Amino acid sequence: MALVVQKYGGSSVASADHMKRVAERIVAAKKNGDDVVVVVSAMGDSTDELLDLASQITDDPPGRELDMLLTAGERISMALLAIAISTHGYEARSFTGSQAGVITTGSHGKARIIDVTPGRLRSALDDGSIVIVAGFQGVSQDTKDITTLGRGGSDTTAVAVAAALDADVCEIYTDVDGVFTADPRIVPNARRLDTITYEEMLELAASGAKVLMLRCVEYARRYGIPVHVRSSYSQLPGTIVAGSMEDLPVEQAIITGVAHDRSEGKITVYGVPDRPGEAAQIFRVLADAEINIDMIVQNVSAEASKLADISFTLPVSDGPTALAALEKVKHTVGYSDVRFDQHIGKVSLVGAGMRSHPGVSARFFGALADAGVNLELISTSEIRISVVCRDTDVDVAVRAVHDAFELGSDEVEAVVYGGTGR
Amino acid sequence: MALVVQKYGGSSVASADHMKRVAERIVAAKKNGDDVVVVVSAMGDSTDELLDLASQITDDPPGRELDMLLTAGERISMALLAIAISTHGYEARSFTGSQAGVITTGSHGKARIIDVTPGRLRSALDDGSIVIVAGFQGVSQDTKDITTLGRGGSDTTAVAVAAALDADVCEIYTDVDGVFTADPRIVPNARRLDTITYEEMLELAASGAKVLMLRCVEYARRYGIPVHVRSSYSQLPGTIVAGSMEDLPVEQAIITGVAHDRSEGKITVYGVPDRPGEAAQIFRVLADAEINIDMIVQNVSAEASKLADISFTLPVSDGPTALAALEKVKHTVGYSDVRFDQHIGKVSLVGAGMRSHPGVSARFFGALADAGVNLELISTSEIRISVVCRDTDVDVAVRAVHDAFELGSDEVEAVVYGGTGR
Repeated sequence: MALVVQKYGGSSVASADHMKRVAERIVAAKKNGDDVVVVVSAMGDSTDELLDLASQITDDPPGRELDMLLTAGERISMALLAIAISTHGYEARSFTGSQAGVITTGSHGKARIIDVTPGRLRSALDDGSIVIVAGFQGVSQDTKDITTLGRGGSDTTAVAVAAALDADVCEIYTDVDGVFTADPRIVPNARRLDTITYEEMLELAASGAKVLMLRCVEYARRYGIPVHVRSSYSQLPGTIVAGSMEDLPVEQAIITGVAHDRSEGKITVYGVPDRPGEAAQIFRVLADAEINIDMIVQNVSAEASKLADISFTLPVSDGPTALAALEKVKHTVGYSDVRFDQHIGKVSLVGAGMRSHPGVSARFFGALADAGVNLELISTSEIRISVVCRDTDVDVAVRAVHDAFELGSDEVEAVVYGGTGR
Repeated sequence: MALVVQKYGGSSVASADHMKRVAERIVAAKKNGDDVVVVVSAMGDSTDELLDLASQITDDPPGRELDMLLTAGERISMALLAIAISTHGYEARSFTGSQAGVITTGSHGKARIIDVTPGRLRSALDDGSIVIVAGFQGVSQDTKDITTLGRGGSDTTAVAVAAALDADVCEIYTDVDGVFTADPRIVPNARRLDTITYEEMLELAASGAKVLMLRCVEYARRYGIPVHVRSSYSQLPGTIVAGSMEDLPVEQAIITGVAHDRSEGKITVYGVPDRPGEAAQIFRVLADAEINIDMIVQNVSAEASKLADISFTLPVSDGPTALAALEKVKHTVGYSDVRFDQHIGKVSLVGAGMRSHPGVSARFFGALADAGVNLELISTSEIRISVVCRDTDVDVAVRAVHDAFELGSDEVEAVVYGGTGR
């Protein structure tokens, strides 16, 4: 008998009929002899509807109350799911994040899980119940106020609960059949991966792959929880995220996949005096404004002028805040100009095998050059190469790289079901 | 500086615009120098919408999960109300029933408040915050599960929170301008009462007046909390429920008002053997089925037959359960037949002064006789006379009694705004 944590996103529980279908899948696992804990998101668009209600009152609601409002969404879905399970003759008990012992920081709207104290969940499991837990929410350690975790929070809840209960596996049910070598909407013959290591999944998530959020994968790696990404619309095998790349067999494929990201923008600061500390001053003020910088490049200055240009990428939504922060230090830093470019895209190649295989970079850049893609920024890690290009070049670049490394399948494997959870 | 508890029903917070209006009223009280605690119901029809979602899954949801579902309603309204208050520059903090320390029995859907431990509310008030509390909900003492209080629950929450905080007054904002001598929809010149004692209000509530629920008035009397019934749509003075009839001045009006109730039905059990214990057996089985009996009458049996007929009234919704319970004891009791009449109405005259004024009954029955109303059952208490008649005779009976005791005003005082809260 295993302990299984299953997580269903908002599109999987968007209506009463969806609830019934998900309930059947949960009951099937229970009938199979497993203990089952389910983490569930708010129904379909219900979070947006709650946000819309708040926006009818003000554009600037207090974080504590916005979190109180939004957590009603999972409360509704988890209770309905428990009701749907009860029609099969099984008892299901739903628990809010607070009741489930999901302890977080006090940062409303983007709280981080500090600990999970699953006493009530354990008791309910001991009683033979199926346990339902509200995703995306917790309770702050200091103030006992209700918090939300931010984007992808329900996945993180699922992995954190799985870790706290020492579960055998955390199954993430989503609207794709698993993790693919590229986004199947761009590369129709993208291949589903049977397994992927935590490190590779981290790099893919950090590079824009949306199937799992970065924080969820970090949590899974830290606690060694196998994550099984599966479709809630099919019985296909999905992808297992587990294991370290240190343990990979030598015959492992060199390259795991190609990720892309259109959610970043690029800021370039022109004419920065090329003296020690000027760049530090710029990045200090951005850090103080809580801007997450991704890639950075500094153009070597012309010897004569002693001026440099510094470019960096950041979430497009952080652009206005970053520009305001930079404006404040314009005179102390003494730069000449700053520009914000929202039309960039990032393409990344990820693979544990590239550590030990020379020539990956050459083939990667060769493929992009042959496809006529102009590169604006480049960054690398041990198992990743990323480039920034025009956003209109992203599709071409992804296909070119995917082809160059022969990542595709002979047939179309992916079904894209549409919809996103949180 | 006073501590004021204000309660707003669902119709008062039915939309974002309603929220803004209520927020203004709350902020006005705060500006006036008072500490303010607000108890709020779910928005408009939102409870019915949640019930509808559940009914799309099953007609028989588990009580624990139905309560979890329904309590999302107040969570949404209280958070939005706090957000609306924040736009005025005042801090408002919302608390669920559980967070507010509303401890209840474990009877889902009809829990009773056992105690209120308002530590978090007190802290928030000490910090200068306006406090918002979810009405209608609590947490069970034994299982820590979320509970709901049943009909009128938000009023009871308000009075219980007021008692726990030793508030100066509990203001119940509703869709009428106060407590009237009769339902203004039936008696257009019904007069608003400036004050009414707890005992009279209890009798009116028990007799079908819907402005306050019985349990709320009981709670207020027990803890001596003045309840101020006011309209959330006007600035009119409303009605103060306070004081004991023992303290009434002698010149107090004899009669307080006329109440009516169309929500009851009548069951008559025919041919009950006129032996000691037979009636007891009937009412034992009804009590075991948790049926609330209101009025009872037993027709004296004809000497020869030694058989009696027993009639009693009960909530119409309890009728089927009562009939099923009676069917089980048909043979042991040995009655001949049972009939359920759903077309009755109850008309009651309430007044503390009737204790010391003879002739009230005579004038009451005279007025009904003159109006041609046929009486089926009669019951009395120290300060109330009630009769059961055909439901079609209720309006005529209420007007006749109201006129006979000259309860009306010279002009039309009431505005009926429509809508009901919970």
